[in-house]
Amino acid sequence: MNARFYTPGITPGALIELSAEESQHATRVLRLGVGAAVRVFDGEGREFSAVIVDTAKKGVCLAVGPATVPAMEPNIAVTLVQAVLKGDKMDDVVRDAVMLGVAAIQPVVTERSEVSLVALERGARRERWERVAIASTKQCGRAVVPTIAPPALLWRSLFTPPGAFTVMCVEPGLPAGGGSIWSLPEVAPPVVRLMVGPEGGWTPEEVGRGAAGATLVTLGKRTLRADAMAIVALSALYTRWRDV
Amino acid sequence: MNARFYTPGITPGALIELSAEESQHATRVLRLGVGAAVRVFDGEGREFSAVIVDTAKKGVCLAVGPATVPAMEPNIAVTLVQAVLKGDKMDDVVRDAVMLGVAAIQPVVTERSEVSLVALERGARRERWERVAIASTKQCGRAVVPTIAPPALLWRSLFTPPGAFTVMCVEPGLPAGGGSIWSLPEVAPPVVRLMVGPEGGWTPEEVGRGAAGATLVTLGKRTLRADAMAIVALSALYTRWRDV
Repeated sequence: MNARFYTPGITPGALIELSAEESQHATRVLRLGVGAAVRVFDGEGREFSAVIVDTAKKGVCLAVGPATVPAMEPNIAVTLVQAVLKGDKMDDVVRDAVMLGVAAIQPVVTERSEVSLVALERGARRERWERVAIASTKQCGRAVVPTIAPPALLWRSLFTPPGAFTVMCVEPGLPAGGGSIWSLPEVAPPVVRLMVGPEGGWTPEEVGRGAAGATLVTLGKRTLRADAMAIVALSALYTRWRDV
Repeated sequence: MNARFYTPGITPGALIELSAEESQHATRVLRLGVGAAVRVFDGEGREFSAVIVDTAKKGVCLAVGPATVPAMEPNIAVTLVQAVLKGDKMDDVVRDAVMLGVAAIQPVVTERSEVSLVALERGARRERWERVAIASTKQCGRAVVPTIAPPALLWRSLFTPPGAFTVMCVEPGLPAGGGSIWSLPEVAPPVVRLMVGPEGGWTPEEVGRGAAGATLVTLGKRTLRADAMAIVALSALYTRWRDV
Protein backbone atom coordinates (compact mmCIF):
# COMPACT_ATOMS: atom_id res chain seq x y z
CA MET A 1 0.00 0.00 0.00
CA ASN A 2 1.19 3.54 -0.74
CA ALA A 3 2.26 5.75 2.17
CA ARG A 4 -0.67 7.55 3.79
CA PHE A 5 -0.77 11.10 5.09
CA TYR A 6 -3.26 12.94 7.25
CA THR A 7 -4.53 16.37 6.35
CA PRO A 8 -7.91 17.76 7.40
CA GLY A 9 -10.38 19.19 4.88
CA ILE A 10 -9.37 17.70 1.52
CA THR A 11 -11.01 18.96 -1.70
CA PRO A 12 -10.86 16.37 -4.51
CA GLY A 13 -8.87 17.66 -7.48
CA ALA A 14 -7.23 20.44 -5.46
CA LEU A 15 -3.60 21.12 -4.65
CA ILE A 16 -2.97 20.75 -0.93
CA GLU A 17 -0.06 21.33 1.40
CA LEU A 18 0.83 18.88 4.17
CA SER A 19 1.62 20.06 7.68
CA ALA A 20 5.26 20.46 8.69
CA GLU A 21 5.12 17.18 10.62
CA GLU A 22 3.53 15.20 7.80
CA SER A 23 5.91 16.78 5.27
CA GLN A 24 8.88 15.71 7.32
CA HIS A 25 7.52 12.17 7.49
CA ALA A 26 7.19 12.16 3.69
CA THR A 27 10.57 13.59 2.76
CA ARG A 28 12.90 12.84 5.69
CA VAL A 29 11.61 9.49 6.94
CA LEU A 30 10.16 7.90 3.80
CA ARG A 31 12.40 9.90 1.40
CA LEU A 32 9.59 10.44 -1.08
CA GLY A 33 10.16 12.89 -3.94
CA VAL A 34 8.18 14.66 -6.67
CA GLY A 35 6.03 12.18 -8.58
CA ALA A 36 5.58 9.72 -5.71
CA ALA A 37 2.09 8.22 -5.49
CA VAL A 38 0.62 8.45 -2.00
CA ARG A 39 -2.74 8.51 -0.25
CA VAL A 40 -4.22 11.27 1.87
CA PHE A 41 -7.09 11.02 4.35
CA ASP A 42 -9.01 13.73 6.14
CA GLY A 43 -9.44 12.04 9.52
CA GLU A 44 -13.20 11.93 9.07
CA GLY A 45 -13.41 8.89 6.84
CA ARG A 46 -12.45 10.11 3.37
CA GLU A 47 -9.33 8.95 1.57
CA PHE A 48 -7.87 9.94 -1.82
CA SER A 49 -4.98 8.98 -4.01
CA ALA A 50 -2.52 11.82 -4.52
CA VAL A 51 0.81 12.65 -6.17
CA ILE A 52 3.62 14.73 -4.73
CA VAL A 53 4.15 17.78 -6.97
CA ASP A 54 6.52 19.92 -4.90
CA THR A 55 8.89 19.21 -2.00
CA ALA A 56 10.86 22.48 -2.11
CA LYS A 57 8.61 24.36 0.29
CA LYS A 58 8.35 23.64 3.99
CA GLY A 59 5.03 21.90 3.38
CA VAL A 60 5.00 19.15 0.75
CA CYS A 61 2.49 19.93 -2.04
CA LEU A 62 0.17 17.23 -3.35
CA ALA A 63 -2.26 17.01 -6.26
CA VAL A 64 -5.33 15.20 -4.98
CA GLY A 65 -6.71 12.47 -7.25
CA PRO A 66 -9.77 10.24 -7.08
CA ALA A 67 -11.27 8.88 -3.85
CA THR A 68 -9.99 5.52 -2.59
CA VAL A 69 -11.40 3.03 -0.11
CA PRO A 70 -9.89 3.14 3.38
CA ALA A 71 -10.06 0.34 5.96
CA MET A 72 -13.63 -0.27 7.07
CA GLU A 73 -14.80 1.26 10.34
CA PRO A 74 -16.46 -0.98 12.96
CA ASN A 75 -20.25 -0.82 13.26
CA ILE A 76 -20.05 -0.36 17.01
CA ALA A 77 -18.81 3.07 18.11
CA VAL A 78 -16.63 2.29 21.13
CA THR A 79 -15.34 5.03 23.41
CA LEU A 80 -12.44 3.67 25.45
CA VAL A 81 -12.55 5.25 28.92
CA GLN A 82 -8.99 4.49 29.99
CA ALA A 83 -7.42 5.37 33.35
CA VAL A 84 -4.15 7.13 32.57
CA LEU A 85 -1.24 4.71 33.05
CA LYS A 86 2.30 5.36 34.19
CA GLY A 87 5.13 6.52 31.93
CA ASP A 88 4.68 5.91 28.23
CA LYS A 89 2.27 3.01 28.62
CA MET A 90 -0.68 5.20 27.69
CA ASP A 91 0.95 5.84 24.29
CA ASP A 92 0.83 2.11 23.55
CA VAL A 93 -2.78 1.86 24.66
CA VAL A 94 -3.77 4.77 22.38
CA ARG A 95 -1.87 3.24 19.47
CA ASP A 96 -3.45 -0.20 19.93
CA ALA A 97 -6.97 1.08 20.56
CA VAL A 98 -6.87 3.18 17.38
CA MET A 99 -5.58 0.20 15.40
CA LEU A 100 -8.42 -1.97 16.69
CA GLY A 101 -11.04 0.60 15.70
CA VAL A 102 -12.23 2.76 18.62
CA ALA A 103 -14.28 5.85 17.84
CA ALA A 104 -12.85 7.90 20.72
CA ILE A 105 -10.60 7.70 23.76
CA GLN A 106 -11.45 9.38 27.05
CA PRO A 107 -8.41 9.46 29.37
CA VAL A 108 -9.51 9.55 33.00
CA VAL A 109 -7.88 10.13 36.36
CA THR A 110 -9.12 7.74 39.06
CA GLU A 111 -8.58 7.52 42.80
CA ARG A 112 -5.55 5.29 42.34
CA SER A 113 -4.07 7.15 39.38
CA GLU A 114 -0.53 8.27 40.01
CA VAL A 115 -0.88 11.34 37.84
CA SER A 116 -3.02 14.47 38.23
CA LEU A 117 -5.03 16.40 35.65
CA VAL A 118 -2.71 19.36 36.19
CA ALA A 119 0.39 17.26 35.46
CA LEU A 120 -1.23 15.87 32.30
CA GLU A 121 -2.01 19.41 31.17
CA ARG A 122 1.47 20.68 31.95
CA GLY A 123 3.02 17.78 30.04
CA ALA A 124 0.77 18.39 27.00
CA ARG A 125 -0.06 14.71 27.13
CA ARG A 126 -3.31 15.02 25.22
CA GLU A 127 -1.49 16.63 22.28
CA ARG A 128 1.03 13.76 22.42
CA TRP A 129 -1.75 11.15 22.38
CA GLU A 130 -3.32 12.94 19.40
CA ARG A 131 -0.05 12.56 17.52
CA VAL A 132 0.09 8.88 18.49
CA ALA A 133 -3.51 8.45 17.28
CA ILE A 134 -2.70 10.05 13.91
CA ALA A 135 0.41 7.87 13.48
CA SER A 136 -1.58 4.73 14.27
CA THR A 137 -4.40 5.76 11.93
CA LYS A 138 -1.86 6.16 9.13
CA GLN A 139 -0.45 2.70 9.79
CA CYS A 140 -3.62 0.70 10.20
CA GLY A 141 -5.37 1.96 7.09
CA ARG A 142 -8.28 3.81 8.73
CA ALA A 143 -9.31 7.24 7.45
CA VAL A 144 -10.96 8.22 10.72
CA VAL A 145 -8.75 9.70 13.43
CA PRO A 146 -10.41 8.86 16.76
CA THR A 147 -11.01 11.81 19.07
CA ILE A 148 -8.82 12.06 22.15
CA ALA A 149 -11.05 13.79 24.71
CA PRO A 150 -9.51 16.12 27.28
CA PRO A 151 -8.45 14.11 30.36
CA ALA A 152 -11.12 14.24 33.05
CA LEU A 153 -11.90 12.84 36.47
CA LEU A 154 -13.54 9.43 36.31
CA TRP A 155 -17.01 10.44 37.40
CA ARG A 156 -17.36 12.90 34.49
CA SER A 157 -16.84 10.07 32.01
CA LEU A 158 -20.00 8.42 33.30
CA PHE A 159 -22.03 10.81 31.17
CA THR A 160 -19.99 10.74 27.95
CA PRO A 161 -21.04 9.72 25.37
CA PRO A 162 -24.67 9.96 26.47
CA GLY A 163 -26.82 6.85 26.09
CA ALA A 164 -23.86 4.51 25.63
CA PHE A 165 -23.94 0.91 26.85
CA THR A 166 -21.21 0.77 29.49
CA VAL A 167 -18.85 -2.16 30.05
CA MET A 168 -16.54 -1.90 33.06
CA CYS A 169 -13.56 -4.27 33.14
CA VAL A 170 -12.90 -5.61 36.62
CA GLU A 171 -10.29 -7.98 38.04
CA PRO A 172 -11.09 -11.67 38.50
CA GLY A 173 -12.28 -12.68 41.97
CA LEU A 174 -13.74 -9.29 42.91
CA PRO A 175 -16.54 -9.47 45.52
CA ALA A 176 -18.76 -7.33 43.28
CA GLY A 177 -18.60 -10.11 40.70
CA GLY A 178 -18.22 -9.53 36.99
CA GLY A 179 -19.57 -11.85 34.33
CA SER A 180 -17.65 -13.18 31.37
CA ILE A 181 -17.74 -11.41 28.04
CA TRP A 182 -20.56 -13.83 27.21
CA SER A 183 -22.80 -12.27 29.85
CA LEU A 184 -23.12 -9.21 27.59
CA PRO A 185 -26.30 -8.93 25.49
CA GLU A 186 -26.18 -10.91 22.28
CA VAL A 187 -27.19 -7.98 20.10
CA ALA A 188 -24.46 -5.34 19.89
CA PRO A 189 -25.39 -1.89 21.21
CA PRO A 190 -24.55 0.81 18.64
CA VAL A 191 -22.64 2.96 21.14
CA VAL A 192 -20.40 1.44 23.79
CA ARG A 193 -18.33 2.91 26.60
CA LEU A 194 -15.53 0.57 27.68
CA MET A 195 -13.97 1.38 31.05
CA VAL A 196 -10.43 0.17 31.89
CA GLY A 197 -8.77 0.94 35.24
CA PRO A 198 -5.24 1.94 36.30
CA GLU A 199 -2.33 -0.23 37.49
CA GLY A 200 -3.71 -0.42 41.03
CA GLY A 201 -7.22 -1.24 39.85
CA TRP A 202 -10.49 0.50 40.64
CA THR A 203 -11.33 1.30 44.25
CA PRO A 204 -14.36 -0.55 45.70
CA GLU A 205 -16.27 2.76 45.55
CA GLU A 206 -15.49 3.16 41.87
CA VAL A 207 -16.67 -0.38 41.14
CA GLY A 208 -19.78 0.26 43.24
CA ARG A 209 -20.57 3.46 41.40
CA GLY A 210 -19.74 1.83 38.07
CA ALA A 211 -21.94 -1.18 38.83
CA ALA A 212 -24.94 1.14 39.09
CA GLY A 213 -24.76 2.06 35.41
CA ALA A 214 -22.38 -0.43 33.86
CA THR A 215 -22.09 -4.15 33.17
CA LEU A 216 -19.09 -5.54 35.04
CA VAL A 217 -16.98 -7.89 32.97
CA THR A 218 -13.96 -10.03 33.86
CA LEU A 219 -11.54 -10.91 31.09
CA GLY A 220 -10.65 -14.46 31.99
CA LYS A 221 -9.23 -16.01 35.09
CA ARG A 222 -5.67 -14.75 34.78
CA THR A 223 -4.45 -11.35 35.93
CA LEU A 224 -3.79 -9.07 32.96
CA ARG A 225 -1.26 -6.26 32.99
CA ALA A 226 -3.01 -2.87 33.11
CA ASP A 227 -1.54 -1.79 29.80
CA ALA A 228 -2.79 -4.95 28.07
CA MET A 229 -6.38 -4.69 29.34
CA ALA A 230 -7.65 -2.35 26.59
CA ILE A 231 -6.33 -4.37 23.65
CA VAL A 232 -7.63 -7.64 25.14
CA ALA A 233 -11.00 -6.13 26.05
CA LEU A 234 -11.46 -4.51 22.64
CA SER A 235 -10.50 -7.74 20.84
CA ALA A 236 -12.96 -9.66 22.99
CA LEU A 237 -15.79 -7.12 22.55
CA TYR A 238 -15.50 -6.87 18.77
CA THR A 239 -15.32 -10.68 18.59
CA ARG A 240 -18.26 -11.23 20.92
CA TRP A 241 -20.39 -8.83 18.87
CA ARG A 242 -19.10 -10.17 15.55
CA ASP A 243 -17.85 -6.74 14.51
CA VAL A 244 -14.64 -7.96 12.90
CA MET B 1 -1.96 -11.42 46.45
CA ASN B 2 1.34 -12.53 48.01
CA ALA B 3 4.46 -12.50 45.84
CA ARG B 4 4.84 -15.68 43.81
CA PHE B 5 8.03 -17.59 43.05
CA TYR B 6 8.83 -20.34 40.62
CA THR B 7 10.72 -23.43 41.65
CA PRO B 8 10.41 -26.83 39.98
CA GLY B 9 9.62 -29.97 41.96
CA ILE B 10 8.02 -28.78 45.20
CA THR B 11 7.35 -31.25 48.04
CA PRO B 12 4.56 -30.06 50.38
CA GLY B 13 5.84 -29.54 53.92
CA ALA B 14 9.48 -29.49 52.86
CA LEU B 15 12.12 -26.81 53.11
CA ILE B 16 13.13 -25.59 49.67
CA GLU B 17 15.74 -23.22 48.28
CA LEU B 18 14.95 -20.75 45.50
CA SER B 19 17.27 -20.31 42.52
CA ALA B 20 19.72 -17.41 42.58
CA GLU B 21 17.50 -15.42 40.20
CA GLU B 22 14.31 -15.98 42.18
CA SER B 23 16.14 -15.28 45.46
CA GLN B 24 17.36 -11.97 44.11
CA HIS B 25 13.83 -11.07 43.08
CA ALA B 26 12.61 -11.85 46.59
CA THR B 27 15.28 -10.01 48.59
CA ARG B 28 16.64 -7.31 46.28
CA VAL B 29 13.59 -6.30 44.26
CA LEU B 30 10.71 -7.03 46.63
CA ARG B 31 12.85 -6.64 49.80
CA LEU B 32 11.18 -9.57 51.53
CA GLY B 33 12.69 -10.86 54.78
CA VAL B 34 12.38 -13.84 57.11
CA GLY B 35 8.74 -14.47 58.02
CA ALA B 36 7.30 -13.06 54.78
CA ALA B 37 4.33 -15.04 53.44
CA VAL B 38 4.69 -15.91 49.78
CA ARG B 39 3.49 -18.47 47.26
CA VAL B 40 5.53 -20.93 45.26
CA PHE B 41 4.50 -22.79 42.12
CA ASP B 42 6.20 -25.62 40.30
CA GLY B 43 5.52 -24.59 36.71
CA GLU B 44 3.38 -27.67 36.16
CA GLY B 45 0.20 -26.43 37.79
CA ARG B 46 0.74 -26.81 41.52
CA GLU B 47 0.94 -23.84 43.87
CA PHE B 48 1.60 -23.66 47.64
CA SER B 49 1.70 -21.05 50.34
CA ALA B 50 5.16 -20.70 51.89
CA VAL B 51 7.09 -18.67 54.43
CA ILE B 52 10.62 -17.34 54.09
CA VAL B 53 12.77 -18.92 56.82
CA ASP B 54 16.28 -17.88 55.77
CA THR B 55 17.73 -15.19 53.52
CA ALA B 56 21.35 -15.39 54.62
CA LYS B 57 22.38 -17.97 52.04
CA LYS B 58 22.65 -17.30 48.32
CA GLY B 59 19.36 -19.12 47.80
CA VAL B 60 16.39 -17.95 49.86
CA CYS B 61 15.00 -20.80 52.02
CA LEU B 62 11.25 -21.38 52.27
CA ALA B 63 9.04 -23.62 54.37
CA VAL B 64 6.32 -24.95 52.08
CA GLY B 65 2.78 -24.86 53.48
CA PRO B 66 -0.56 -26.09 52.19
CA ALA B 67 -1.57 -26.12 48.54
CA THR B 68 -3.30 -23.01 47.17
CA VAL B 69 -5.40 -22.45 44.07
CA PRO B 70 -3.60 -20.81 41.14
CA ALA B 71 -5.28 -19.01 38.23
CA MET B 72 -7.32 -21.44 36.15
CA GLU B 73 -5.82 -22.81 32.94
CA PRO B 74 -7.80 -22.53 29.68
CA ASN B 75 -9.56 -25.66 28.42
CA ILE B 76 -8.08 -25.24 24.96
CA ALA B 77 -4.37 -26.00 24.74
CA VAL B 78 -3.07 -23.37 22.32
CA THR B 79 0.43 -23.53 20.88
CA LEU B 80 1.37 -20.13 19.50
CA VAL B 81 3.52 -20.61 16.41
CA GLN B 82 5.02 -17.13 16.19
CA ALA B 83 7.43 -15.89 13.54
CA VAL B 84 10.36 -14.31 15.39
CA LEU B 85 10.01 -10.53 15.34
CA LYS B 86 12.68 -7.83 15.27
CA GLY B 87 14.49 -6.50 18.34
CA ASP B 88 12.78 -7.05 21.67
CA LYS B 89 9.28 -7.32 20.26
CA MET B 90 9.29 -11.09 20.68
CA ASP B 91 9.74 -10.60 24.44
CA ASP B 92 6.46 -8.69 24.57
CA VAL B 93 4.69 -11.35 22.53
CA VAL B 94 5.93 -14.10 24.86
CA ARG B 95 4.91 -12.10 27.93
CA ASP B 96 1.41 -11.39 26.57
CA ALA B 97 0.80 -14.89 25.24
CA VAL B 98 1.72 -16.44 28.59
CA MET B 99 -0.57 -13.99 30.39
CA LEU B 100 -3.45 -14.90 28.09
CA GLY B 101 -2.98 -18.61 28.73
CA VAL B 102 -1.08 -20.38 25.94
CA ALA B 103 0.18 -23.90 26.58
CA ALA B 104 3.35 -23.48 24.51
CA ILE B 105 5.15 -21.12 22.18
CA GLN B 106 6.94 -22.30 19.05
CA PRO B 107 9.19 -19.55 17.65
CA VAL B 108 9.67 -20.00 13.91
CA VAL B 109 11.87 -18.52 11.22
CA THR B 110 9.99 -17.81 7.98
CA GLU B 111 11.08 -16.72 4.52
CA ARG B 112 10.73 -13.05 5.42
CA SER B 113 12.21 -13.32 8.93
CA GLU B 114 15.14 -10.95 9.41
CA VAL B 115 16.88 -13.30 11.83
CA SER B 116 18.41 -16.74 11.35
CA LEU B 117 18.26 -19.82 13.56
CA VAL B 118 22.02 -19.51 14.06
CA ALA B 119 21.72 -15.92 15.27
CA LEU B 120 18.93 -16.90 17.67
CA GLU B 121 21.09 -19.69 19.04
CA ARG B 122 24.14 -17.45 19.38
CA GLY B 123 22.06 -14.83 21.20
CA ALA B 124 20.60 -17.44 23.60
CA ARG B 125 17.21 -16.01 22.72
CA ARG B 126 15.28 -19.09 23.73
CA GLU B 127 16.74 -18.93 27.26
CA ARG B 128 15.75 -15.25 27.37
CA TRP B 129 12.17 -16.05 26.31
CA GLU B 130 12.03 -18.75 28.99
CA ARG B 131 12.91 -16.13 31.60
CA VAL B 132 10.24 -13.82 30.18
CA ALA B 133 7.72 -16.67 30.32
CA ILE B 134 8.54 -17.37 33.98
CA ALA B 135 8.26 -13.67 34.89
CA SER B 136 4.89 -13.42 33.15
CA THR B 137 3.64 -16.63 34.81
CA LYS B 138 4.55 -15.18 38.20
CA GLN B 139 2.63 -11.99 37.45
CA CYS B 140 -0.53 -13.39 35.92
CA GLY B 141 -1.23 -15.96 38.63
CA ARG B 142 -0.79 -19.13 36.57
CA ALA B 143 1.11 -22.07 38.02
CA VAL B 144 1.95 -23.52 34.60
CA VAL B 145 5.00 -22.19 32.81
CA PRO B 146 4.35 -22.60 29.07
CA THR B 147 7.04 -24.42 27.12
CA ILE B 148 9.19 -22.35 24.80
CA ALA B 149 10.11 -24.78 22.03
CA PRO B 150 13.49 -24.49 20.31
CA PRO B 151 13.22 -22.06 17.36
CA ALA B 152 12.66 -23.94 14.11
CA LEU B 153 12.03 -23.31 10.45
CA LEU B 154 8.36 -22.73 9.69
CA TRP B 155 7.70 -25.98 7.87
CA ARG B 156 8.73 -28.04 10.89
CA SER B 157 6.03 -26.40 12.99
CA LEU B 158 3.40 -27.84 10.69
CA PHE B 159 3.74 -31.15 12.51
CA THR B 160 3.87 -29.90 16.14
CA PRO B 161 1.81 -30.54 18.17
CA PRO B 162 0.43 -33.50 16.18
CA GLY B 163 -3.30 -33.53 15.55
CA ALA B 164 -3.80 -29.88 16.43
CA PHE B 165 -6.45 -27.74 14.74
CA THR B 166 -4.45 -25.07 12.94
CA VAL B 167 -5.48 -21.42 12.60
CA MET B 168 -3.28 -19.26 10.37
CA CYS B 169 -3.63 -15.48 10.74
CA VAL B 170 -3.46 -13.70 7.38
CA GLU B 171 -3.68 -10.06 6.36
CA PRO B 172 -6.99 -8.57 5.18
CA GLY B 173 -7.50 -8.49 1.43
CA LEU B 174 -5.25 -11.45 0.61
CA PRO B 175 -6.13 -13.25 -2.65
CA ALA B 176 -6.15 -16.59 -0.76
CA GLY B 177 -9.00 -15.26 1.34
CA GLY B 178 -9.31 -15.80 5.07
CA GLY B 179 -12.60 -15.92 6.92
CA SER B 180 -13.48 -14.05 10.07
CA ILE B 181 -12.97 -15.57 13.48
CA TRP B 182 -16.62 -16.65 13.18
CA SER B 183 -15.79 -18.97 10.30
CA LEU B 184 -14.07 -21.27 12.80
CA PRO B 185 -16.02 -24.31 13.99
CA GLU B 186 -18.45 -23.54 16.81
CA VAL B 187 -17.15 -26.32 19.05
CA ALA B 188 -13.67 -25.61 20.36
CA PRO B 189 -10.99 -28.12 19.35
CA PRO B 190 -9.02 -29.32 22.40
CA VAL B 191 -5.62 -28.63 20.83
CA VAL B 192 -5.01 -25.58 18.66
CA ARG B 193 -2.00 -24.34 16.73
CA LEU B 194 -2.18 -20.57 16.11
CA MET B 195 0.20 -19.29 13.43
CA VAL B 196 1.26 -15.62 13.38
CA GLY B 197 3.63 -14.22 10.74
CA PRO B 198 6.54 -11.76 10.80
CA GLU B 199 6.59 -7.99 10.11
CA GLY B 200 6.69 -8.52 6.35
CA GLY B 201 3.88 -11.09 6.44
CA TRP B 202 3.83 -14.62 5.07
CA THR B 203 5.00 -15.25 1.52
CA PRO B 204 2.31 -16.47 -0.92
CA GLU B 205 3.98 -19.90 -0.81
CA GLU B 206 3.73 -20.02 2.97
CA VAL B 207 0.04 -19.09 2.84
CA GLY B 208 -0.49 -21.67 0.12
CA ARG B 209 1.21 -24.37 2.12
CA GLY B 210 -0.59 -23.24 5.28
CA ALA B 211 -3.96 -23.25 3.55
CA ALA B 212 -3.56 -26.96 2.83
CA GLY B 213 -3.69 -27.85 6.51
CA ALA B 214 -4.89 -24.72 8.27
CA THR B 215 -7.95 -22.51 8.48
CA LEU B 216 -7.02 -19.00 7.28
CA VAL B 217 -8.40 -16.26 9.48
CA THR B 218 -8.34 -12.47 9.11
CA LEU B 219 -8.55 -10.39 12.26
CA GLY B 220 -10.75 -7.54 11.12
CA LYS B 221 -10.44 -5.04 8.33
CA ARG B 222 -7.67 -2.89 9.77
CA THR B 223 -3.97 -3.64 9.47
CA LEU B 224 -2.55 -4.82 12.79
CA ARG B 225 1.06 -4.36 13.82
CA ALA B 226 2.93 -7.68 13.73
CA ASP B 227 3.71 -7.55 17.44
CA ALA B 228 0.03 -7.03 18.31
CA MET B 229 -1.27 -9.93 16.19
CA ALA B 230 -0.75 -12.66 18.80
CA ILE B 231 -2.50 -10.87 21.67
CA VAL B 232 -5.43 -9.88 19.44
CA ALA B 233 -5.71 -13.35 17.90
CA LEU B 234 -5.53 -15.12 21.27
CA SER B 235 -8.15 -12.77 22.77
CA ALA B 236 -10.41 -13.38 19.81
CA LEU B 237 -9.91 -17.17 19.83
CA TYR B 238 -10.56 -17.62 23.55
CA THR B 239 -13.63 -15.35 23.24
CA ARG B 240 -14.96 -17.10 20.16
CA TRP B 241 -14.65 -20.48 21.88
CA ARG B 242 -15.96 -19.14 25.22
CA ASP B 243 -12.80 -20.21 27.01
CA VAL B 244 -12.56 -17.13 29.24
